[in-house]
Amino acid sequence: MTAVRPHVIPSRRRFDAIVIGSGSGGLTVAVGLGRFGRDALLIEREHMGGDCTNTGCIPSKTLLHQTAALAAGSGADPRSILAGVRAHRDALRDHEVQEFGGADGVTFVYGSGPLNSDRSVSITRGDGTVWRAAADNVVLATGSSPRRLDVPGFDDGGGDGDGNGDRVVLTNEELFELSTPPTHLAIIGAGAIGLEMALAFRRLGSAVTVVELANQVLPGVLPEAAGIVAGALVEHGIVIRTGVRVAGYRSDGGRLELAPTSPAAANNGGSIPVDSVDRVLVAVGRVPNTSGLGLVEAGVELDDRGAVVVDGRGRTSSKGVWAVGDMTNKGGTTHDAAIRGRRIIQSIVQPYLPIGDEPLRPTVTFTDPEVASIGDQPASPPADVVRITVDGAGIDRSYTDGVDRGILVVDVRPPTGTVLGATIVGPRAGEIITTFSLAMKAGIAFHRWYGTVIPYPTYSEVITKAVQQYLSEVGSDVTGHTVRWATGLLGRTRARLSRT
Amino acid sequence: MTAVRPHVIPSRRRFDAIVIGSGSGGLTVAVGLGRFGRDALLIEREHMGGDCTNTGCIPSKTLLHQTAALAAGSGADPRSILAGVRAHRDALRDHEVQEFGGADGVTFVYGSGPLNSDRSVSITRGDGTVWRAAADNVVLATGSSPRRLDVPGFDDGGGDGDGNGDRVVLTNEELFELSTPPTHLAIIGAGAIGLEMALAFRRLGSAVTVVELANQVLPGVLPEAAGIVAGALVEHGIVIRTGVRVAGYRSDGGRLELAPTSPAAANNGGSIPVDSVDRVLVAVGRVPNTSGLGLVEAGVELDDRGAVVVDGRGRTSSKGVWAVGDMTNKGGTTHDAAIRGRRIIQSIVQPYLPIGDEPLRPTVTFTDPEVASIGDQPASPPADVVRITVDGAGIDRSYTDGVDRGILVVDVRPPTGTVLGATIVGPRAGEIITTFSLAMKAGIAFHRWYGTVIPYPTYSEVITKAVQQYLSEVGSDVTGHTVRWATGLLGRTRARLSRT
Repeated sequence: MTAVRPHVIPSRRRFDAIVIGSGSGGLTVAVGLGRFGRDALLIEREHMGGDCTNTGCIPSKTLLHQTAALAAGSGADPRSILAGVRAHRDALRDHEVQEFGGADGVTFVYGSGPLNSDRSVSITRGDGTVWRAAADNVVLATGSSPRRLDVPGFDDGGGDGDGNGDRVVLTNEELFELSTPPTHLAIIGAGAIGLEMALAFRRLGSAVTVVELANQVLPGVLPEAAGIVAGALVEHGIVIRTGVRVAGYRSDGGRLELAPTSPAAANNGGSIPVDSVDRVLVAVGRVPNTSGLGLVEAGVELDDRGAVVVDGRGRTSSKGVWAVGDMTNKGGTTHDAAIRGRRIIQSIVQPYLPIGDEPLRPTVTFTDPEVASIGDQPASPPADVVRITVDGAGIDRSYTDGVDRGILVVDVRPPTGTVLGATIVGPRAGEIITTFSLAMKAGIAFHRWYGTVIPYPTYSEVITKAVQQYLSEVGSDVTGHTVRWATGLLGRTRARLSRT
Repeated sequence: MTAVRPHVIPSRRRFDAIVIGSGSGGLTVAVGLGRFGRDALLIEREHMGGDCTNTGCIPSKTLLHQTAALAAGSGADPRSILAGVRAHRDALRDHEVQEFGGADGVTFVYGSGPLNSDRSVSITRGDGTVWRAAADNVVLATGSSPRRLDVPGFDDGGGDGDGNGDRVVLTNEELFELSTPPTHLAIIGAGAIGLEMALAFRRLGSAVTVVELANQVLPGVLPEAAGIVAGALVEHGIVIRTGVRVAGYRSDGGRLELAPTSPAAANNGGSIPVDSVDRVLVAVGRVPNTSGLGLVEAGVELDDRGAVVVDGRGRTSSKGVWAVGDMTNKGGTTHDAAIRGRRIIQSIVQPYLPIGDEPLRPTVTFTDPEVASIGDQPASPPADVVRITVDGAGIDRSYTDGVDRGILVVDVRPPTGTVLGATIVGPRAGEIITTFSLAMKAGIAFHRWYGTVIPYPTYSEVITKAVQQYLSEVGSDVTGHTVRWATGLLGRTRARLSRT
C-alpha cells in the first residue's frame, strides 16, 4: 500500500454514480463523469490503477523495455532491473492516486463491499467501519483475477497473493515481486502474458520453458503469425511445448510433469518431465471478479463464466447498474475498458444519443517481434474473402535492419473492399495496427488505400504491398476504373519493385 | 561496379519507352511498363538503384541500425560496421540488378548520353561505342547530386566523387566509403542527412559538430519539433551550431571557420573556430542532374534551379518526354518518386483516366527520436486553423520505456475537420505518420477519428490524445451531435485520464 491522502466520504451520501474498481474502466467512468459535473464515488479494494498499473501492462512493459536493453548489452544487473520495475510501477501508482483520486467530482475511498438491490453500496473500510452510499447509477469495474490451476503438487507452492515472492507457483500478481530471476521458469499458458514474460525472464538469464495446451502459441491468433513468434522465441533460447497439459509438479527436483493432449502421443510414452523448475508462472486466462459483490441478489445477470452480462452500452440486467472491463462478458483489455467506459458515460449523460457500433478490439503482444491483430480472422477465411499475405522480411527496412521474419495478413471482402481483419508480426506491429484500426472504423474500402504514400524505408511499407496484392487478386471482380486500372498496373509487380 | 549479366540492345531499336536513370522513379516506370506488356529501355550511368540504394537510404539506415546496436552495447568494432554497411549495400545492389535488369519487358544497359529532339537517345557505352535508340516516350529519372560548397580551403579536400575515401571534404557519395570513423566530423547542414549521419558517427565514436545556416535544425520542420530533436542529439554528445555559415577551412589544424549570420552576432566577435576537424560532410541540399542531357535543345523546360518542370502527371514541356524524382521541380524522396512513377505509367498506358490529387508527401528523419511530418504546417497556423499539440512524454508507453521527450502537432481546420498537416517526434514516429497519410488521403475528418481504438500501451496513443483535445477546442463551433457530445465528454479530460 502506498502513501495516500486520506479520502473521506462527504456528508452527502448520495452520488450520481458509484464506481466499484479503479482500473482502466472504472477510472475512465469516474473521472469522465466528474468532467461533466456529476459526482462519482470511486471505491478501490487495493491499488488504484487495477491490473494494468499494478500487475499488468505497466510492470510488464517496463520489464520488457529494461530487459531489451540488457539483451542489447546494457550490462545492467538483473536484480536491479526487477527492483527498478517495482519502483517504477509504485511511482506511477502514487501519481495516479494523487491525480485521479483528487479529480473534480471524484470522491475516492479505499474499501470493498456488496451492492444492494437499491443501488446502494455497503463499504467496509480498512479500519473495519462500514459506510453506506447510494447513487442513481452503479458502475461495476472490479476486473478479473488470474485463473489458477488445480494441479497435484501446486498446493505447496501455490501463489497465495500475498506478494512475498517466496512461492514456487506464481501468477502475474506475484511475479513482479521476485527479487531474483528464477533459475528455470516454467510458464503455463502461451498467451500474451506468457510469451511476454518468457522473453523478459529469458533475457534476465533464466532458463524458460513455455507450456501450452493448444497446438500453437497465442491461441486465437492466425497459426502462420503465431508460428513466426514461436520461432523467434525459440531463437532466444526459450523452450516451447505445445499440445500438452500439466499433470503434476514435485518440489523435490522441481519436476513438472506434462502429458500430451493428443491420444496418439499420450499412448506413445506417457508423461514428459521438465526438470529443475524452481518457479512456475500460471498464465492460463482470467476469472471475472464477480463474487462477494451480491450481484445475483441485486438482479445482475452473470454468464456461465461468472462474467456480468452487458449490452453495447454497458448496461447490465439490473436497471441503473452498469459494468465495464474484464469482469463483463465483453472481456476487455485496458484500451477496450477505456473506450467502453466512455460509452457508459455517454449513456448516463446523454442517454438518447445513438451509441454507434461496438468498438473494434485490436490486441498487441509486446514480444520481439511484436504481434498485433484486429478484427475477425478465422484460420481459414470464408470463400468470399480474399486473404492477402505479405512477407515482412521482404521489405527494404527489414533488409537494412537485418529483420528476417515478419508477416502481414489482411482479410478483405470484395467487391466492397471491406477490411475484416488484419494480423501483423514484426517490429513496431503495435503501431502499424493503428492504421487498420482507424481505417476499419471509418469504413475505408481496401482499394481506396491505394495511393497512400508511406515513407520509405519504414516497416509500414507492408501495407503498400498488401494493397497492391489485393488489387491484383480482385481486379476482375471489381467494378470501377480506378481499381481495374490499378490492378493491372500494380498488382502483378513483384514485392521489391516499388519503394513506397 | 558490381558484376552484372551482359545486357545488349536487341536488334529492334525502337521502344515504347526509354527510361534514363534506374533509381526509385526510373525503376518503377521501367518495370511497371514491362508489366503492361510495353517494352522499356532502361539506361543507367553508374549503379542501379540510384541515390537510395547506393549513397542514401540503404547505407544510411543500415548504419543507423548497426550503430544503435553499438550504442546499446553490442561491442562491435566501428571499422567492421563501416565495412559491413558497404557489403550490405553491395549485396542489395547486385540483387536489384539481377531482379530488375532482367524484368519482363525491360532492356537494361549501362551508359549515358543526350536526349535528341526526336525522342531518340544516343548512348555512350563503357567501351566507347555509341548506340542510338528511339521511343514513343522518354522518361527522365536522372536524380540529383549533392550540392557542393564554395568555401576557401575546401578545394584541397573537396570530395571528387571518386569514392576513394581519402578526402577531407565529403558528401553522402563518399561518406560510406570511409574505412575508419573520423576523429572529429563536422557536418554542414542540419537536414535529414546531416542529422542522421551526426547520430550514426557519434555512436561510432567520432566527435561531431553540426553546422546550420538557419536558426534551427531541420529547417522547414516546426521549430518546437526540431528543438526536441536537437536536444536529444545534444544529449548524445553532438555539438550543434545554428545560425552560422562556413567561412573557411584550414587543413593545418583542421580548423573550420564559422561566421554568425545575424549582423549583431557577427559584429560581436567575428568568426567562430571549430578545431581539429579531420572530415567535413557537406549535406546542404541537392542539385538536379539535368546538365549534359541536351534537355534545353530538346525543348524540355527547366526552372531556375535547373530542375525539369513537370505537371501532376509527370509531363514535361516536350511532348512524349516525362520526368520523375528529384531531377524535377516536384523534388522527391524515394517513396515520392515511386508514387509519381506510377502516375507516369498510368498516363502512358491509360491516358484518358483521371490522375487524382497530387500525392501527399510524408517525410521521416530516422534519428533517435524519429521525426515524421506530412502536409503543410507553417510555423504559425492561420487563424482558422486549430493547432493541437500533445506531449509525447505524457503517454504511458513513454513512461514504461523511459522516453522523456516527444511531440505530436496536428493542424485541423474546423468545422470540416480537415487535417492539414501533422508532425511527430518520438520513437516509431515514422510508422505513426502512416495513419495520418491514409486518413488525410481518404479525407477523414479529424472528429471522425474519435472512437478509434488504439492498443495500450503503444506510442500511437498520442493520436487519441490529439483527437480528444481537438474535440474539446472546437466543440462549440462544430455542428453535429457526436462532435458536440464527444467534446463535452472527452475534451476536458486530462492527458493521463484514459488509457486508450
